[in-house]
Amino acid sequence: MHSLDSLDEINKLDTGNVLTSIESLGAQIRQAWEEVRQREVPAACPLAKNVIVSGMGGSALGGRIVDSLLADRARVPIEVVTEYNLPNYVNKDTLVILSSYSGNTEETLASANEALNRGAMVYGVTTGGKLADFLSENGFDGYIYDPKENPSNQPRMGLGYSIASVLAVLSKCEFINLLDSEMEEAIQEAEKLITDYGANVPENENVAKALARKLMGKVPVIIASEHLVGSAHTFKNQLNENAKTFGLIFDIPELNHHLMEGLRNPHEIKNILHFLFLDSPHYSKRVGIRYPITKEVVEKNDIETEVYGTRGSKKIIEIFEILVLSSYVSFYLAMLYGLDPTPIPWVDHFKTELSKS
Amino acid sequence: MHSLDSLDEINKLDTGNVLTSIESLGAQIRQAWEEVRQREVPAACPLAKNVIVSGMGGSALGGRIVDSLLADRARVPIEVVTEYNLPNYVNKDTLVILSSYSGNTEETLASANEALNRGAMVYGVTTGGKLADFLSENGFDGYIYDPKENPSNQPRMGLGYSIASVLAVLSKCEFINLLDSEMEEAIQEAEKLITDYGANVPENENVAKALARKLMGKVPVIIASEHLVGSAHTFKNQLNENAKTFGLIFDIPELNHHLMEGLRNPHEIKNILHFLFLDSPHYSKRVGIRYPITKEVVEKNDIETEVYGTRGSKKIIEIFEILVLSSYVSFYLAMLYGLDPTPIPWVDHFKTELSKS
Repeated sequence: MHSLDSLDEINKLDTGNVLTSIESLGAQIRQAWEEVRQREVPAACPLAKNVIVSGMGGSALGGRIVDSLLADRARVPIEVVTEYNLPNYVNKDTLVILSSYSGNTEETLASANEALNRGAMVYGVTTGGKLADFLSENGFDGYIYDPKENPSNQPRMGLGYSIASVLAVLSKCEFINLLDSEMEEAIQEAEKLITDYGANVPENENVAKALARKLMGKVPVIIASEHLVGSAHTFKNQLNENAKTFGLIFDIPELNHHLMEGLRNPHEIKNILHFLFLDSPHYSKRVGIRYPITKEVVEKNDIETEVYGTRGSKKIIEIFEILVLSSYVSFYLAMLYGLDPTPIPWVDHFKTELSKS
Repeated sequence: MHSLDSLDEINKLDTGNVLTSIESLGAQIRQAWEEVRQREVPAACPLAKNVIVSGMGGSALGGRIVDSLLADRARVPIEVVTEYNLPNYVNKDTLVILSSYSGNTEETLASANEALNRGAMVYGVTTGGKLADFLSENGFDGYIYDPKENPSNQPRMGLGYSIASVLAVLSKCEFINLLDSEMEEAIQEAEKLITDYGANVPENENVAKALARKLMGKVPVIIASEHLVGSAHTFKNQLNENAKTFGLIFDIPELNHHLMEGLRNPHEIKNILHFLFLDSPHYSKRVGIRYPITKEVVEKNDIETEVYGTRGSKKIIEIFEILVLSSYVSFYLAMLYGLDPTPIPWVDHFKTELSKS
């Protein structure tokens, strides 16, 4: 696909309504925030000494984003678990949030049983499946939702639900202080960007389309820090699943201690890697100073770079900003490669093979 | 360098004694374990509700390895922090282990001051520098050691110290139960491998040399799970710093949910990536089943693969096994590229530029 400005061509490739799901991200967030706020959470959850968010792939991303966002706000440790087993410390003083879009992820169901056996406080976030059964059989609270704002029905395109529901549960359990008005402001800002980066805005005025074109034929290397690390993770996963593109993430300051030496061999990487720095005025001062110096080092290693400077006036707004950006960029990149973003044949093949064992 | 079997050529390239540091890994572990066991830890540390290991680059790797190893053993959350700031939850009930080989890492010193201000229990692990001053000025316990078994004096080559000292502190604080006899057995197994993978063993009988040759001209993609995730992280960092080679890590089962779709674009990755699976009989059953299926999917995407099956009879032995393997492989790969593994010019350049700001 040569032009990203033909809605006809976009609609022809996008058989699974991924574009509509992106356009509905704000509505997803609003629905989940309002619905979870009206529901029960485990009565003793404000007393939990630590929190686990257990989920895989797209269903882990909400937890990762919230974990990064809350590092400077949450009053207990929050850990995202993407394995079968829960850490040994999980006990009756732990709040375990189980997140599975389909409700049938085998790792998350294993975690669910472990949480039950350890006597943990349990909360589930799912559209149904076995996880919904598990919750009702054991009398656990949860948010079993109708993903009406995610017409693609792809978990990675329903991130508005998983981010907002985890935020809402943590807020109801008094681990963070997040006002309805703060959320509404963030949603409105996200909706502005959904328009600005949308399919109707031509490429020469559209940051997301222009970025997708630059990433064509490249391995995007997403660089972020602090509250945006979870968002970078999301960007990478969406590149994998929507654009069938290899993508990487590294964080500053940690990468300054090793990665810069690793840009020499093999020589072929110099033509393939494309570093994308997600720069934010909300990074702490010494971290911010590192961005231009790191960029210079990468360029001196003959590797292309790009900076996306966030516009959001608060950290939580930036979270949604990068979510909108990464959703669109991965979608447009799929279009440029002439690919339907919906099918994930290898993930499906893998699940079939695994189910035989 | 064409042959890895000429000690003369190796010694000519290895001006900084990296090889001797690798050969001394067992001695590093023994020294740190014994010395920390004889020293004081904060009296109330067994009561800590959570543990932070704060360190950067090579000094974070000990924490990462221990964190992975202990997920199924530790009775409180352990978090590795590679940033300036400590998470908001850190308070008087937190044990903060500050790890900086030189003692002059600016991120770790920022964390140190934050730990002090929050009233946390503090323990330092360093060879000296400003961190040693900070500890003595504030009356904090610590392990200020003579790195006599690390003649290269490169932090990444002193991992025996950072792993064993963190293990010893956590053991003294009663977070884990680790016997002297268990450690001694693990050290002896490591020393056997130091011989088996050593420079004196010719390439046709040497797993580490053979692996280095296969990784030549490639981007190694290290795949691991559960207790070996921290070890995979170490492998990647050593590839960066010793062999000046780009390296990546992903973990199973999480990668099964997205990465397999990302092996299509750009097409050039198919010739460059080389997946190295660190397979272990100690992974949980369903994780173990995933290894051959994942390998098959990668190969069907026309990407080379390799399996390293661990030999260690216990998880802690495997940790040291992979440490020995990754140290040697990254060293031999540097030799194949004709590079002295010691200099890290970009990290040094970066620190100089940063110090001007």
